[in-house]
Amino acid sequence: MRNFTVGPVAMSQDILNIGSEQIPYFRTAEFSKLMLENEAMILRAANAPAGSRAVFLTGSGTSGMEAAVVNLFDEDDKVLVVNGGSFGARFAEICRVYGIPHEEVKLSFGKQITANDLAPFENQGFTGLLVNIHETSTGVLYDAELLSAFCRRNNLKFVVDAISSFLADPFDMSKIGADAVIVGSQKAIALPPGISAVLLSSRACEVISLRERIRCFYLNLKEALKNGERGQTPFTPAVGILLQMHKRLSGILTRGVAEEIRKAKRLAQYFRERIANFPFVVASESCSNAVTSLRVLPECKSTAFEIFEILKNEYGIFVCPNGGDLRDSVFRVGHIGELTANDYEALFSAFEDMKSSGKI
Amino acid sequence: MRNFTVGPVAMSQDILNIGSEQIPYFRTAEFSKLMLENEAMILRAANAPAGSRAVFLTGSGTSGMEAAVVNLFDEDDKVLVVNGGSFGARFAEICRVYGIPHEEVKLSFGKQITANDLAPFENQGFTGLLVNIHETSTGVLYDAELLSAFCRRNNLKFVVDAISSFLADPFDMSKIGADAVIVGSQKAIALPPGISAVLLSSRACEVISLRERIRCFYLNLKEALKNGERGQTPFTPAVGILLQMHKRLSGILTRGVAEEIRKAKRLAQYFRERIANFPFVVASESCSNAVTSLRVLPECKSTAFEIFEILKNEYGIFVCPNGGDLRDSVFRVGHIGELTANDYEALFSAFEDMKSSGKI
Repeated sequence: MRNFTVGPVAMSQDILNIGSEQIPYFRTAEFSKLMLENEAMILRAANAPAGSRAVFLTGSGTSGMEAAVVNLFDEDDKVLVVNGGSFGARFAEICRVYGIPHEEVKLSFGKQITANDLAPFENQGFTGLLVNIHETSTGVLYDAELLSAFCRRNNLKFVVDAISSFLADPFDMSKIGADAVIVGSQKAIALPPGISAVLLSSRACEVISLRERIRCFYLNLKEALKNGERGQTPFTPAVGILLQMHKRLSGILTRGVAEEIRKAKRLAQYFRERIANFPFVVASESCSNAVTSLRVLPECKSTAFEIFEILKNEYGIFVCPNGGDLRDSVFRVGHIGELTANDYEALFSAFEDMKSSGKI
Repeated sequence: MRNFTVGPVAMSQDILNIGSEQIPYFRTAEFSKLMLENEAMILRAANAPAGSRAVFLTGSGTSGMEAAVVNLFDEDDKVLVVNGGSFGARFAEICRVYGIPHEEVKLSFGKQITANDLAPFENQGFTGLLVNIHETSTGVLYDAELLSAFCRRNNLKFVVDAISSFLADPFDMSKIGADAVIVGSQKAIALPPGISAVLLSSRACEVISLRERIRCFYLNLKEALKNGERGQTPFTPAVGILLQMHKRLSGILTRGVAEEIRKAKRLAQYFRERIANFPFVVASESCSNAVTSLRVLPECKSTAFEIFEILKNEYGIFVCPNGGDLRDSVFRVGHIGELTANDYEALFSAFEDMKSSGKI
């Protein structure tokens, strides 16, 4: 199967090889050393400022999103949520569950955020901002500098879900002054799903260290930070994925993070230049390199979901369907993981074939 | 490395092989079918009563423990926690985090629970009981029938953490009338760590379905149950481990759950019969088949933690150290995962060698 989804993505052979090895016991000096190196490497890959820390949660990316929110905010905060898709809505829902006062900047499908969108929220007593810097459900990469400047002006804690953007788009934690950055194992890091990393600025670490009560036991980052000092986790982690992460981050840092990002960018450009021959249009402004959202045009003979199904069943190709209201109109093609131009040739060849046979 | 820890444990070759395969996209009918089969198989392996459900969380076993507590209880409940070790203490801590009124039956290290221990808590307005049926930190397998009868008499919701006992000791969810049973992927199921399953009786499912507010987003079992109806999860799960689980549960059910338990029991007996030659004694009453806790005798020339280190560094053997107060006095030897009598021969040969060289 060729895999153009946005996760789990295709993995390299050296990572797969680790997946077939026995998993060692982890309460050891050897595993602690590996974990401390993982922490240092992921901070370096994000250009985190000095004094930052990273912790590794065993869970989906959503566990990292919730951990950032519940450890940094409470009922006395007022949080602004950028909501332009299902992951923005998820941040708002997490605030609701914890009774954290919040407002939403609602953006239409596929739209970039602008200064006008933020203007009504200047000097309104907010204490934090939550954004999925790449709203994975629509493919939009939000303007990090605009949001960063807004956070600095308003002295907000800046929480960035970079799950599907990290290592696909340029990202500089120091430059944008993010306080928490959430990363997932199954996106451009190209590992199996099961680990979410949360990178924390020294300010965020301090906020957490001073917190008397954290309202989730499993997602308590104070405990995670404390255990992380000796390269350990409070609970049994997904050890296998953390071993794979060590291998993968070592490779990426050797080649250079910029090279990893260039690879995603090249694949995205290659794909977007060739899509004009088919009854789809790029559906989003300011696309992330990680994925292209495509809207099927009225003349297309199959719905977006039917295209997903045909590609899967007849061509052994996975693209990424959308859910909810967009199920029939939008599908997504990813550019992360072990993909090459050859894989896209196979996808275009399938599209050509579907066009000839009147399916699109 | 020979692995006698209680997780991650040694895995079989067919499971390791799956670990080296690419992970498929999971929002598909194919993955849904596999997940529905996983649910049916794990319920069958636990002899869950008709109407029970199982959900799969991406997380450590602790995520399953917290999910059971936060979805079944709130401030209006009064919960009894069996606390005879660090995992019992963890259940109590989870209750504290959520402000769930609770009391503890405190048991000394390695002690079985008795009717006398429970007597003061009869008819005291409790609504639930939480137990780690095998307290992994001490190796004690608690008396499930005694606890079950107490729960029935007092009409309590009965939550059983069976993480390190499931498939190692006989377990019958129907017979003991458990409402929630928590299982972890890295114990006797012998898969990589990263998945916790929560099995729920029809009564527990009903309680959850009627709950208006669940105080953790990631661990919301109402959503997990709803998504599970179509074989899906609310968030990206650890797909790879769930594929391995399908293979493993299929194999276990083909051979029979009783055979799997007999295997752990045989290994535990074989080990316990031969340990008398060394300066250790079995430290717990009523041992689980999963692990033997050993207390080092005063004449032993190394502490428990030193023995762990010597075995690891000089013999390539992992046993399980204890933490906290027990670090120097107790270590544990597991009997789950892909272990054979040959592995124990190697362990005893190492012990003999350490004895000859004056290390124990």
